[in-house]
Amino acid sequence: MAEVLHKSFMNSRKIFVPGKLHPEIRVGMREVLIEDPQSPVVPIYDTSGPYSDPDTEIDVRKGIARFRESWILKRGDCDLLNEISSDYGRSRRENSELAHLRFAAEHRPLRARKGARITQMDYAQRGIITAEMEYVAIRENQRLDELSGGAGTPITPEFVRSEIAAGRAIIPANINHPECEPMIIGTNFLVKINANIGNSAITSSIEEEVEKMVWAVRWGADTVMDLSTGKNIHETREWIIRNSPVPIGTVPIYQALEKVNGVAEKLTWELFRDTLIEQAEQGVDYFTIHAGLLISHIPLTVSRTTGIVSRGGAILARWCMVHREENFLYTHFREICEILAAYDVGISLGDGLRPGCIADANDAAQFAELDTLGELALIAKENGVQVIIEGPGHVPMHKIQENMERQVEKCHGAPFYTLGPLVTDIAPGYDHITSAIGASMIGWFGTAMLCYVTPKEHLGLPNKEDVRAGVVTYKLAAHAADLAKGHFASQFRDNALSRARFDFRWNDQFALSLDPEKAIEYHDETLPGNQSRQSHFCSMCGPYFCSMRITRAVREFAATGKLSE
Amino acid sequence: MAEVLHKSFMNSRKIFVPGKLHPEIRVGMREVLIEDPQSPVVPIYDTSGPYSDPDTEIDVRKGIARFRESWILKRGDCDLLNEISSDYGRSRRENSELAHLRFAAEHRPLRARKGARITQMDYAQRGIITAEMEYVAIRENQRLDELSGGAGTPITPEFVRSEIAAGRAIIPANINHPECEPMIIGTNFLVKINANIGNSAITSSIEEEVEKMVWAVRWGADTVMDLSTGKNIHETREWIIRNSPVPIGTVPIYQALEKVNGVAEKLTWELFRDTLIEQAEQGVDYFTIHAGLLISHIPLTVSRTTGIVSRGGAILARWCMVHREENFLYTHFREICEILAAYDVGISLGDGLRPGCIADANDAAQFAELDTLGELALIAKENGVQVIIEGPGHVPMHKIQENMERQVEKCHGAPFYTLGPLVTDIAPGYDHITSAIGASMIGWFGTAMLCYVTPKEHLGLPNKEDVRAGVVTYKLAAHAADLAKGHFASQFRDNALSRARFDFRWNDQFALSLDPEKAIEYHDETLPGNQSRQSHFCSMCGPYFCSMRITRAVREFAATGKLSE
Repeated sequence: MAEVLHKSFMNSRKIFVPGKLHPEIRVGMREVLIEDPQSPVVPIYDTSGPYSDPDTEIDVRKGIARFRESWILKRGDCDLLNEISSDYGRSRRENSELAHLRFAAEHRPLRARKGARITQMDYAQRGIITAEMEYVAIRENQRLDELSGGAGTPITPEFVRSEIAAGRAIIPANINHPECEPMIIGTNFLVKINANIGNSAITSSIEEEVEKMVWAVRWGADTVMDLSTGKNIHETREWIIRNSPVPIGTVPIYQALEKVNGVAEKLTWELFRDTLIEQAEQGVDYFTIHAGLLISHIPLTVSRTTGIVSRGGAILARWCMVHREENFLYTHFREICEILAAYDVGISLGDGLRPGCIADANDAAQFAELDTLGELALIAKENGVQVIIEGPGHVPMHKIQENMERQVEKCHGAPFYTLGPLVTDIAPGYDHITSAIGASMIGWFGTAMLCYVTPKEHLGLPNKEDVRAGVVTYKLAAHAADLAKGHFASQFRDNALSRARFDFRWNDQFALSLDPEKAIEYHDETLPGNQSRQSHFCSMCGPYFCSMRITRAVREFAATGKLSE
Repeated sequence: MAEVLHKSFMNSRKIFVPGKLHPEIRVGMREVLIEDPQSPVVPIYDTSGPYSDPDTEIDVRKGIARFRESWILKRGDCDLLNEISSDYGRSRRENSELAHLRFAAEHRPLRARKGARITQMDYAQRGIITAEMEYVAIRENQRLDELSGGAGTPITPEFVRSEIAAGRAIIPANINHPECEPMIIGTNFLVKINANIGNSAITSSIEEEVEKMVWAVRWGADTVMDLSTGKNIHETREWIIRNSPVPIGTVPIYQALEKVNGVAEKLTWELFRDTLIEQAEQGVDYFTIHAGLLISHIPLTVSRTTGIVSRGGAILARWCMVHREENFLYTHFREICEILAAYDVGISLGDGLRPGCIADANDAAQFAELDTLGELALIAKENGVQVIIEGPGHVPMHKIQENMERQVEKCHGAPFYTLGPLVTDIAPGYDHITSAIGASMIGWFGTAMLCYVTPKEHLGLPNKEDVRAGVVTYKLAAHAADLAKGHFASQFRDNALSRARFDFRWNDQFALSLDPEKAIEYHDETLPGNQSRQSHFCSMCGPYFCSMRITRAVREFAATGKLSE
């Protein structure tokens, strides 16, 4: 296994903010050390975990620190199982031919004690503020409650609890993923982004996927979905989870389909159930489950321009048709919830009928499924399962707001998690951009998490540079949404960068930007060398055309008081 | 001079649609020849002029065809001057040391006959439908009035005339730029984009700038602004105009400042006036003029985070302060209009006080200047000068709509022309994207033209790849706005591409996309070779996971009628 990226961010240090209710908490953050002594440090929400902390040792063969294990065990409501519960999981562990692929350290899984309710939602509804809840409160605040001198309204642990209890936010945090730094997904918090990785039948290895995960969280992915569909999915996932500081999501039906060699009609509830348990005991934090696609919705897709474009949706539609039966994920939904509740796995209700082109946006099929997702969200909540709702897809700008309003109405305020949406179909190669337009807008309107799209969408599998482009693009979309929602800490960073720009403090500009390396690369292309980073102009206008310079003169002139004479 | 790019678009041919009122008109368009015989050809609005027509000979030393010359002369209201009228222009022509830089073919300039009113607005107000007006009507329709079977509402030449007469649209078409294919800028037409090129004191040559212009129009730039500030601006501009099939805009104050060696306070009205005439007689189609920045606005900028970021604005602010006088562009505005009217040069009223960061958006300085721009727009109209209004800049999403509404109200419906706006400051290296988000939104709200931003914004000068990224990104933003405005022809292209996607007609997908070369490059990275373009799956999911394939099965099943049993 190659070395993964492990270094600090430009001109930054890692700080750790302790908890008050839970003193064992240490919330990692990045602090940008501004070169100008007049300017305050800028704390930045940090998704990169130990990978940006040079003081931590990292060995991907051992996995990162399991710091949340003691919090979970302290609650005393889980059992440490003697062996893993899924047949498939056991068979993989026992297969000696897979020894070279297996993650070395084998951990025994945790499961809720019989009768115990152990999800973050369960605790929240019982009025308990868990360590995870306090953690996310500190994390969301980014120290700006202190730094702002009271200008921002701080997020309190109690507010976090109340939002989770109401089902308006979730903390995806499987008890079997103790390496995960808690984060929250909800409309009243910072907008989050997800990056998809995963091998397919055609390309990539375990090593590449772990590298991609580390890479994605470095650029700012708040969660990572492993959408692997090729070989050795079980082992790949284990490596990813053991090394991931962010929640990991999956679409279990993909692996279930692999187990029946791709023949959708061979899928059974028993097989799917075993897959859920297998993945839950590995530590997957949330599952996309396409339980809302009903057999009665299928005829609504027949006259669409691009039919069913969700892989999960297509698989289940085929299953329903061949068996002439209702979607088994719908009929078994309560059992699914019971399994997930025992590990605190969140559900992301999949939109198997999302529109795959502008022409199909907001159609009857899409909205019929959304109604069903709303019903299912209530059932999940009854079972204490944390739930979010997936959304489109391809939607022209004038139809975006309706998506958000309907989702809030039909799904009782459960967080919305959208893929883009792409606002036009005609830009393959640039769909990170077409989708970031829709994502920014829907994020502003209230969507809690945005699933990234890379430049390779519709064309191929993303490589590392595509993952970077996708993550940074979505980071800026989410940030633009936070600004539009009036988030204090977000505006603080823009202001710090703009002041640095006005002062020609190039290094501060770079350090405060979402992708310092790209900014430096572009700057140095025209004016190379460290010296030009000291210069009080840039290559765009050259020295005497610089408007920033002229403005400084305007200010000096104004300071003489002569302007108002 | 190197050879410029001259080839047809992928799977496309150039067609020419004749005029009815003006049979001499031949409107060039691109027609995508779809491989599937069941699907109609797709006509596409084409900005590339002769450069995508292999049947035309091109020699950049001679310039492209001056097809509009006969239309202008036929109107019989212009004089062919014996020599150029500007002192500076004459001195450049007479300087033998510049001979190697000069464009070989010297054309005598045209000017309105004394007392004649010859702008498109003048004609429109007199009820005359010019050849230019019929040209743009045909061009905007993209043949879809015929192809749609009456579903779209066609743009008529009379509608074009009435919009221009009302000041809600302009056709920038200097009588000295007869190489230019007429296009229209107005809220009731397709959203247009502008690409900036131009050398600076630090980089690039005449040759590079001509190449960049050809490159920009190939990717879809509707107009090109030459913002050169370095050496040989006059000659560079001549080469660009003589080879440009799209309107060329400039900011004359940049060249005027070069003439006084960058010392803003040495600028005079006489010098500026000579620069206007020099450029008008070369054929510049529209001028950005920062006449709305008043001395009384300057104190409003003092407490801004980034002061004055417009170069033109900063130059004039300095001039006002040093001289303690009102902006000479404001005091001489009627004379400016008289000069421009004699050549039909449009005015783009510059927003010298546009916000340079999120913190300064929609502030008192910005809106005070906008009020003045509204006053000036009325004066321009009185003089028959076609006018558009420039807008920001950096604006968070929730403040974008106010910009549009105020502009319409204060500027009496004159077309709005915005730079982005960028919706966050923290993404240098990705500002084509941060600005495309704002641009799409404001385009949907009614902005008529979007000035592109490249990935190098704030960091350096764009190279050819940056120009491509900027143009394609803005093309998709403008197209997304057209879709949201319900434009029939725009939706037609999305539908055609999405049907091709659903059918796995890879070549049709590529040919219909905004950047076929990029799409092919990305596709072939994972699945190379021509054979895989025939395959009925892609590298994203591999063969049996393909949702499109499964959907086909769903349709076949539905066709048996068994779904509704």
